[in-house]
Amino acid sequence: MAESIKSGIDIDLGNQCSRTAYSWAKKSFIHRVPGSGNPLMAVDGVFSNVMDYRGVKVGISSDGIGTKIELAERTGIYDTLGFDLVAMTADDLAANGIEAVNLSNILDVDHLDHEIVDDLMRGLYDAAKIARITVTGGEIAELGNRIGGYGDRMHFNWCSTATGLIPEGAELIDGSNIRPGQIVVSLASRGFRSNGFSLIRHVMHKTFGPEWHLQPYSGQQSWGEVLLTPSRIFAPLITDLITARIPLYGIAHITGGGVGENFTRVLKSSGYGAELNRLFDPHPVMKKIEELGTVPEDMAYRLWNMGNGMLLVTDEHAYSALNELAGKYEYPVQQAGYIVSEPRIRIVSRGNDPQQLEYPLR
Amino acid sequence: MAESIKSGIDIDLGNQCSRTAYSWAKKSFIHRVPGSGNPLMAVDGVFSNVMDYRGVKVGISSDGIGTKIELAERTGIYDTLGFDLVAMTADDLAANGIEAVNLSNILDVDHLDHEIVDDLMRGLYDAAKIARITVTGGEIAELGNRIGGYGDRMHFNWCSTATGLIPEGAELIDGSNIRPGQIVVSLASRGFRSNGFSLIRHVMHKTFGPEWHLQPYSGQQSWGEVLLTPSRIFAPLITDLITARIPLYGIAHITGGGVGENFTRVLKSSGYGAELNRLFDPHPVMKKIEELGTVPEDMAYRLWNMGNGMLLVTDEHAYSALNELAGKYEYPVQQAGYIVSEPRIRIVSRGNDPQQLEYPLR
Repeated sequence: MAESIKSGIDIDLGNQCSRTAYSWAKKSFIHRVPGSGNPLMAVDGVFSNVMDYRGVKVGISSDGIGTKIELAERTGIYDTLGFDLVAMTADDLAANGIEAVNLSNILDVDHLDHEIVDDLMRGLYDAAKIARITVTGGEIAELGNRIGGYGDRMHFNWCSTATGLIPEGAELIDGSNIRPGQIVVSLASRGFRSNGFSLIRHVMHKTFGPEWHLQPYSGQQSWGEVLLTPSRIFAPLITDLITARIPLYGIAHITGGGVGENFTRVLKSSGYGAELNRLFDPHPVMKKIEELGTVPEDMAYRLWNMGNGMLLVTDEHAYSALNELAGKYEYPVQQAGYIVSEPRIRIVSRGNDPQQLEYPLR
Repeated sequence: MAESIKSGIDIDLGNQCSRTAYSWAKKSFIHRVPGSGNPLMAVDGVFSNVMDYRGVKVGISSDGIGTKIELAERTGIYDTLGFDLVAMTADDLAANGIEAVNLSNILDVDHLDHEIVDDLMRGLYDAAKIARITVTGGEIAELGNRIGGYGDRMHFNWCSTATGLIPEGAELIDGSNIRPGQIVVSLASRGFRSNGFSLIRHVMHKTFGPEWHLQPYSGQQSWGEVLLTPSRIFAPLITDLITARIPLYGIAHITGGGVGENFTRVLKSSGYGAELNRLFDPHPVMKKIEELGTVPEDMAYRLWNMGNGMLLVTDEHAYSALNELAGKYEYPVQQAGYIVSEPRIRIVSRGNDPQQLEYPLR
């Protein structure tokens, strides 16, 4: 990795630690008998965990919003992070065809600032309304110097666990019915979601210095504001598609790892590949940071969503109905490619250095 | 509050922020219709949240282990914190008669250390085995300078969400059937659980200086080691008591707020009070810190468990059966008092300055 694009994150060590955590977790699966809250799907390879609660399948997803929080601290805008918090877990559930129904959140702070807490929780309420979920649990922990961040006001980290149900009459979506000939539809993102911010901050700091967020990005917005752009929440649209019986064979939520890695997780069970020759273009802000940081195209596609928030595998004849339902949310969609027999994903990239990127199905 | 006992935590501001968070959360309850994951019990006044998932009641509890983590960083012992993590959420569920069945954990770190992650996750596995739960979800987030702590190794904060089911044939335990004449049984704690550590650390630092954890506490243990003593996990015993049809009318998990505040939450729905004249004695380490910090008796009882990890309300004739089941876990129990008509809790305290402490049922 070139010096200019070091993000401070060691991906190999991260994977090693995740594998270790999972190997210990897996040993615990024998602690429950069927129907008593035992896991139904394996923890790896899917976006959420599904439990059997006396015959009712319940999905659970936990995640935080990482270092995107620094953008709120830099801009003083705190009421949009709730959208990122809900999107991270509700959309992971949606990727398995599970409708998020409620969310429990934990806010770790150094010291409390009531005004900021109020803004955060109002934003969470707004996001919960759009996602059609209840906020049923919350915990605020004062941790003093265990929490740090930018500036002098309250610093915090924020995570949540969402649980969900499979819509009546539907089944889990796990990619096992994916077949060549099906199409891949992309749902556009609104900008960066809650990942890839370590590299973004590194490039910003190197380019503009410590107060990089104040730099004008456009006539209307500062760099800080454009990078804070809240995540689009796809979950309610996915529930509507399922309820309308639109066939959905696989869904990828594009988070860390980008299109390649996240779509690989979806394709793994079928073993088929995909040709993605018409993905959405990356947002201009992504191309700009790619340029400023001389970030290689393949790395940009590995760390960021590059314009695509979710990929859905469906039938070609279902596309117009899907498009119509997405239109109700004003969510841009487009046919991004199709499923092929060869066990690899091929992406025609659309950043500053367009090329074909290939990802084998490991 | 005397200068000597300032703990750095503003309780009033904390309550204000919690109320604000809850008021926003409550507005979201209309987002679900009955049977679709709607909340059944209010968020305030109980220890966990109960949802209706297509007729199956599911309890959810989220919590972290706060600044007790600093003790692991100071002693280099990382494989006991899992017991604290499981105890915080599983025992909150148990307090409503809900059997914890699985747990999803989020570990925020500054940078990764594989050896520490392995120790943490092994400890979590050991605790999950005792609690008879599965660890079905996990997320490790690298947050750089957003996380701080003691010393040079990996710093982290750790929280979890546990979900649970009501044992077959049983009902939620919410205190509504508490009546005068019933007895209150205490389950002994093993030491400090995961709260009250801000004051503990303050007293330690003031008494012994920055490297206070290295000071000998006894011939065998340093102060760091004795303060790290992991939480006893009561959840499996509560499940066994419920399964054995031991009547349990109310259960208090003694965390922040101590016996008074947590038992008040249990008594509130019935409106009856309690006379607690035979609680367990505080652990010697608690009396020692009370002495070193000249902590007033009522404050010690408000911040720490003072020897009592859980309080159970049952019938006098059920005590011997309860005692026998607790004996299988080698958990000390004793009859700590009884329910009275007057709407107040009276505690005969047993710290360095024994007195009668009164808590009205607000």
